[in-house]
Amino acid sequence: MSMLNIEKYINEKREEYLGLLFTLLKQKSISAQNIGMEECSTMLMEILEDIGMETKLISTEGYPVVYGEKINNKNDFTLLIYGHYDVQPPDPLDEWKTPPFEPTVKDGKIFCRGAGDNKGQLMAQLLAIKTYQDVVGDLPINIKVAIEGEEECGSVNLAKFVEDNKVLLRSDLVYVSDGPMHDSGAPVVLLGVRGMLFIELVAKGAKWDNHSGNKGNIVPNPAWKLVQLLNTMRDYSGKILIDGFYDDLLKPTEQELELISTLPFNAQDLAEQIGYRDFNMTKEEYYKKLTLEPTFNIAGFHSGYDGEGAKTIIPSVAKVKIDFRLVVEQDPEDIFNKLVEHVNKFAPEVEVKRYGSMKPSRTPSDLNEVKIVKKAVEKSYKQKPILQPSLGGSLPDYVWTEILGVPSVIVPYANYDEANHSPNENLNVDNFFDGILCTCHVIKELGNAYS
Amino acid sequence: MSMLNIEKYINEKREEYLGLLFTLLKQKSISAQNIGMEECSTMLMEILEDIGMETKLISTEGYPVVYGEKINNKNDFTLLIYGHYDVQPPDPLDEWKTPPFEPTVKDGKIFCRGAGDNKGQLMAQLLAIKTYQDVVGDLPINIKVAIEGEEECGSVNLAKFVEDNKVLLRSDLVYVSDGPMHDSGAPVVLLGVRGMLFIELVAKGAKWDNHSGNKGNIVPNPAWKLVQLLNTMRDYSGKILIDGFYDDLLKPTEQELELISTLPFNAQDLAEQIGYRDFNMTKEEYYKKLTLEPTFNIAGFHSGYDGEGAKTIIPSVAKVKIDFRLVVEQDPEDIFNKLVEHVNKFAPEVEVKRYGSMKPSRTPSDLNEVKIVKKAVEKSYKQKPILQPSLGGSLPDYVWTEILGVPSVIVPYANYDEANHSPNENLNVDNFFDGILCTCHVIKELGNAYS
Repeated sequence: MSMLNIEKYINEKREEYLGLLFTLLKQKSISAQNIGMEECSTMLMEILEDIGMETKLISTEGYPVVYGEKINNKNDFTLLIYGHYDVQPPDPLDEWKTPPFEPTVKDGKIFCRGAGDNKGQLMAQLLAIKTYQDVVGDLPINIKVAIEGEEECGSVNLAKFVEDNKVLLRSDLVYVSDGPMHDSGAPVVLLGVRGMLFIELVAKGAKWDNHSGNKGNIVPNPAWKLVQLLNTMRDYSGKILIDGFYDDLLKPTEQELELISTLPFNAQDLAEQIGYRDFNMTKEEYYKKLTLEPTFNIAGFHSGYDGEGAKTIIPSVAKVKIDFRLVVEQDPEDIFNKLVEHVNKFAPEVEVKRYGSMKPSRTPSDLNEVKIVKKAVEKSYKQKPILQPSLGGSLPDYVWTEILGVPSVIVPYANYDEANHSPNENLNVDNFFDGILCTCHVIKELGNAYS
Repeated sequence: MSMLNIEKYINEKREEYLGLLFTLLKQKSISAQNIGMEECSTMLMEILEDIGMETKLISTEGYPVVYGEKINNKNDFTLLIYGHYDVQPPDPLDEWKTPPFEPTVKDGKIFCRGAGDNKGQLMAQLLAIKTYQDVVGDLPINIKVAIEGEEECGSVNLAKFVEDNKVLLRSDLVYVSDGPMHDSGAPVVLLGVRGMLFIELVAKGAKWDNHSGNKGNIVPNPAWKLVQLLNTMRDYSGKILIDGFYDDLLKPTEQELELISTLPFNAQDLAEQIGYRDFNMTKEEYYKKLTLEPTFNIAGFHSGYDGEGAKTIIPSVAKVKIDFRLVVEQDPEDIFNKLVEHVNKFAPEVEVKRYGSMKPSRTPSDLNEVKIVKKAVEKSYKQKPILQPSLGGSLPDYVWTEILGVPSVIVPYANYDEANHSPNENLNVDNFFDGILCTCHVIKELGNAYS
């Protein structure tokens, strides 16, 4: 079977496929704020049914997982596609140039919250299943699809879902499209992710805001409390001072450092991409810091007055939201305990809230399945993909490699400047259709190899 | 003339006087947000005219000053009453139990933004002028009234206004009613204030928020920048580390320490008043820290995500609003320069914004005018007032003592739990009427002494 027919078919269907994506994008699904989640899962069930899958809405303690499968032969190779239907909150709203939930095509890009992360990439995969069947007929492999609704909140119930549904999810390879392609435009095959731990520290002073004059020096200031606590946790060079934080961090292997040395790098492009003119890392620094080192990030710090001008109060409460990115074999459970111990030692009155966590993961680069995917991606994009040991970001990849016991590869379809989690999130229209084609290639190559 | 007639008259007028106050309270006048300022100054001009004063709206580079005078004889003793018509922003709105600009009487208190700070106290003074004239006839002294609209923003144009209008404002004593009475309910005569310097530090990272996974460790985090900078400015014990900060701070005099030793103190009451159960200072610590020592207060710290749950971003900007309370002879100009020098040394990329400042002040306790006011207050409240060397808060008192060259006393009329600058600001109904009576006593005693 030639792929030309598939390319032609995708081309004919451009308008219809974009329309399907826009319908999904318009449906808000902000998990952090419980907006539109039920409507969005219902919509996805219908989409899966329309492409001929047997579906099931599987409830969890949080938002349900949308599950679908197309089984031709129980003994065939089974590919499990994983994605998520929830999106990040759209704020800050005033920085969007178009309404965040109104997909708008401009300069070849679809602007919309969720365009890149992850609805556009997910739809590319689903429409590949439809396309393949429409053009060729039966799929050459079994395909299962699991789409969760809590990825933007740390996938808190996914591990238990996988644990509880091991038989249903039995498969040979997990295939994920999320995150951006390389900024050179080259395709990427990722073999793992950084883990994550998201927490909040809450310090309380008096029961209410007090006047900073009438009560200044008398009432404790919780903002100062957090400023001081944070400084016991990280030194000025960025080194994390929580006891034992680095204990389980694996040293980069020679193979990983070698992979890094082959990766493309352009400091100027990167500076523009991140919007930071003074960026001046070397390639080695950049990839090591991004893929092989943990982070301690302040995602939000809020206390007291935030309006125009002056307001002279002693705030009654201060909150800081923090995310750590973790690297194999750091265990978020263990890091959380060490963090709590640190807070109890330096500021026991500060409350530690936990919002979610995810283990880091890595799949070996010499697996046959990895080689086949790499080949399919190369054929589709007509260039060698970049093989990267880990994504800078976090995906619940360990639930496949560790709980389900299946290798996992991540092949991002979004453009590097998708601005996921930021205002003006977008997906290049071309990237969307390239993603459909690439998924078709992967289905075909896996079929060739294993049936 | 017996004060009984005046007391009786005030009693008859309760409803009318409350109605006048409510009309003023309903008129928003939030200087920080430029809401209702013109309407409020117009309303005050009419009130002054209604009580028989010659009025003048005197423009400044900010909001105008409402001026009024009632001159019987140019050679008589002249009292200058100072107040302000602007109020603090009402947020956080969801903590108000009644609408912030709808005066509501409950449990003997008037709840409204501005009830205590300063419209209620100001109206008590103005209605005393009316009452005195209605009951007795001519005033025994000259009275001038200057009401500014920028006190809640640091009175940035008041000094220049006084400088430019020295002849118009010529007087023998400045009389101010602002801030709360002592928490024991005893009247207070204050002989000075702490000064103030309000600034904002702004740190910028990338041009936009970046994804904390895809860019974590790569893009600098401005919240961390400010956390680190703040820690170079103040140690864990609260000592301020800005070079030269304490240089011009006068050591407490023996007289001041003696005054403190005579002040009333009840730790339990204070703990309830500030809403902080763990309050455990001694009397000496409390008054020294509140009146004779400077502060370094974080009034607001804001960066990144502030919604529910998790959002994994590297914020592009972080802002911290800071107010220092200063003590004689600390000069805000000098402190600001030292602060800028510190920031330039430790984090030159951080921007320093200045919102306003005020010099500290003190009036000697052995002046004849002070003794007369003390006597009038004692007669009105039927108990000895507490003589305190300084208010914890800031008022632009130095413009009188230093620029106009006239002694100044502050006699607060509001209840200790007025919650000024906080949600549910209030003024006891009784305190309002007591304030009218007290002002009448002051007018009478000054008349007796000087005419």
